[in-house]
Amino acid sequence: MPLITLTTDFGLASHYPAQMKATILQICPTAQIIDISHGVRPQHIREGAVILADVAPQFPAGTIHVAVVDPGVGTQRPIIVAEVAGQFYVLPDNGLITPTLSRGMEQAHYLREARWWRSNVSNTFHGRDILAPVAAHLANGVQPSVLGPACAQPVLLPWPVVRRGEGRLLGEVLLVDSFGNLITNLSRSDIESLGARSTIAIQCGGIQIDGVQATYGLSAPGETIALFDSLERLELAVVQGSAANLWQIEESAAVSVRVSSE
Amino acid sequence: MPLITLTTDFGLASHYPAQMKATILQICPTAQIIDISHGVRPQHIREGAVILADVAPQFPAGTIHVAVVDPGVGTQRPIIVAEVAGQFYVLPDNGLITPTLSRGMEQAHYLREARWWRSNVSNTFHGRDILAPVAAHLANGVQPSVLGPACAQPVLLPWPVVRRGEGRLLGEVLLVDSFGNLITNLSRSDIESLGARSTIAIQCGGIQIDGVQATYGLSAPGETIALFDSLERLELAVVQGSAANLWQIEESAAVSVRVSSE
Amino acid sequence: MPLITLTTDFGLASHYPAQMKATILQICPTAQIIDISHGVRPQHIREGAVILADVAPQFPAGTIHVAVVDPGVGTQRPIIVAEVAGQFYVLPDNGLITPTLSRGMEQAHYLREARWWRSNVSNTFHGRDILAPVAAHLANGVQPSVLGPACAQPVLLPWPVVRRGEGRLLGEVLLVDSFGNLITNLSRSDIESLGARSTIAIQCGGIQIDGVQATYGLSAPGETIALFDSLERLELAVVQGSAANLWQIEESAAVSVRVSSE
Repeated sequence: MPLITLTTDFGLASHYPAQMKATILQICPTAQIIDISHGVRPQHIREGAVILADVAPQFPAGTIHVAVVDPGVGTQRPIIVAEVAGQFYVLPDNGLITPTLSRGMEQAHYLREARWWRSNVSNTFHGRDILAPVAAHLANGVQPSVLGPACAQPVLLPWPVVRRGEGRLLGEVLLVDSFGNLITNLSRSDIESLGARSTIAIQCGGIQIDGVQATYGLSAPGETIALFDSLERLELAVVQGSAANLWQIEESAAVSVRVSSE
Repeated sequence: MPLITLTTDFGLASHYPAQMKATILQICPTAQIIDISHGVRPQHIREGAVILADVAPQFPAGTIHVAVVDPGVGTQRPIIVAEVAGQFYVLPDNGLITPTLSRGMEQAHYLREARWWRSNVSNTFHGRDILAPVAAHLANGVQPSVLGPACAQPVLLPWPVVRRGEGRLLGEVLLVDSFGNLITNLSRSDIESLGARSTIAIQCGGIQIDGVQATYGLSAPGETIALFDSLERLELAVVQGSAANLWQIEESAAVSVRVSSE
Repeated sequence: MPLITLTTDFGLASHYPAQMKATILQICPTAQIIDISHGVRPQHIREGAVILADVAPQFPAGTIHVAVVDPGVGTQRPIIVAEVAGQFYVLPDNGLITPTLSRGMEQAHYLREARWWRSNVSNTFHGRDILAPVAAHLANGVQPSVLGPACAQPVLLPWPVVRRGEGRLLGEVLLVDSFGNLITNLSRSDIESLGARSTIAIQCGGIQIDGVQATYGLSAPGETIALFDSLERLELAVVQGSAANLWQIEESAAVSVRVSSE
């Protein structure tokens, strides 16, 4: 059974994802459709990009990922299909694919050939009218190259980089997860590259933490801790609570890590 | 694989839909079950009716749609199965099917034959105990006519009509979608029937708009615009915002459109 | 198709359930995965336990249920697989299985054999790294006994008992459902065992009710009633409203029932 995932900002109560599924199942009745998330904040391309890059690679080879965070729907912004690491991504060319591209790109094409689309294309729901049918045709074995001309370089969002100083790293909060944990762009290897780690001091907004814990359950409820998340990124969390709420910290907040050998 | 959809007011965090799915899969293990929405406002039959009529027809022929917005559960209100345009609708006979019936009706039957139900029928969860098993039996090929006596006329909700004056239309907000967009009952053809469209003035609550845009992304964020939605209905929206929140407008609010040729 | 269900406290907008699904489908591509709920209150083991025990038994024989409410993730708390009434439960050994065990237990094993896990196991997401792959291997026919040593007795939560006096029962609110209905731990048979039922007086917080109704729709909107829920438990509800909100009553609130023959 071909596998298709959906990632959108349509909202949890929305009946729009079901319309995409209906369209997919019209064209590819054997498709198995998995929701990655419909809870991306409306129009928030970067959040969608992070979630897609976090989750999509965990699916089996050949999976077709459809992502719709698309403030430019109906304008001239292109839609693309990109093959990355043996999977397919169908999404508006607005930067949504940015962090995914760090895994390389085998090919990309603009969606231009309307014969693979819904017969009536609305101006406001390309997710249903263009992206869903294209994904279903891909699931049926259609090659990306017939969908439109090659795209040499998808649009990229500016992406937060890790800045390095003497015994010091500067990063930022990449994502606030559903528990209110603050996921940063600082990886375990970034921090290990600082060398001697007898003291690690982490600061973000009002949070000042010394040291990185192995997991939540080794600290008392209510305590603010740092740990590495399930994708090996530095995460700031309140045990059995919400760091985002307690400390009033949002995405893009600066995070600094200092290491001093004693 | 037979296709069954669910539309309910059970809420997004509810574990009631899973009980319906469990029941369906007991009877028809090959059923593919798709959620249309569980976010219909509790007991809000009209909202469920609009969502069902919007989404269900997009599914393949033969799809079985189960809808549960049922303040009368356990009382004497009947439950029906209706065949409309080659699909099946299993729902309480409380008006939930009203806008769907504009597509015609091939047959309808009251659910009376208890042998197609769960062996223990509760008073409070007919979705699980009657509608889900009936849908699963339909998926297995059972004919609607064996489920109970014919229903000549399902119950209809009063439905908002479009009123027409000289160069003027009066309608109302049919649905507030998950972005806070205001979907009206005025169709593109209603408005085009007004003829000369050099000026189109739209009014709804505090909103005064001139002209209909092609899509969101052609206007600045925060701007209030009118456009046609993906089902060709007039929609009032705030670009990258929520018209419902900004203008404090709810379902059923009056909408007027005036056209004047210059 | 093997059937796997998921019950977690990850939240409705979370992209963590999709990561579990990705892992399952890598190992068992034919698995059909059904969400029971991702709306368990964070870290609220008892709520997860009630929902799992309510819903899981309704699924077909052989279904594999994965439940993750796991404040101890990454600590030494064990994870188990238990076979109960012909179904399999994969969950942390923290009491989450407590009410399910009232149905008996055929076998249980600690998950210790890492060859059935993801190759990299994080400290914070055992749902994806241990429970999901084990569930998928069970779906592929792996026997529980190869997963680790036998577990004679899973950890049990203290569980609210029904106290009985002369013509009187004392119980408590077990769960607040998605409508705000108050589900108690008093069953229909508990109450019928009180014998003569000419008067039944129910009290909970500020609620004082006489008598048990058959269903919601026989009373006026806004009225507070008692009825038996779809699993035959006493439930307190506001017709077309939320008893939890109106009466400010939460889980664990005491409920008393008195019966007096006239």
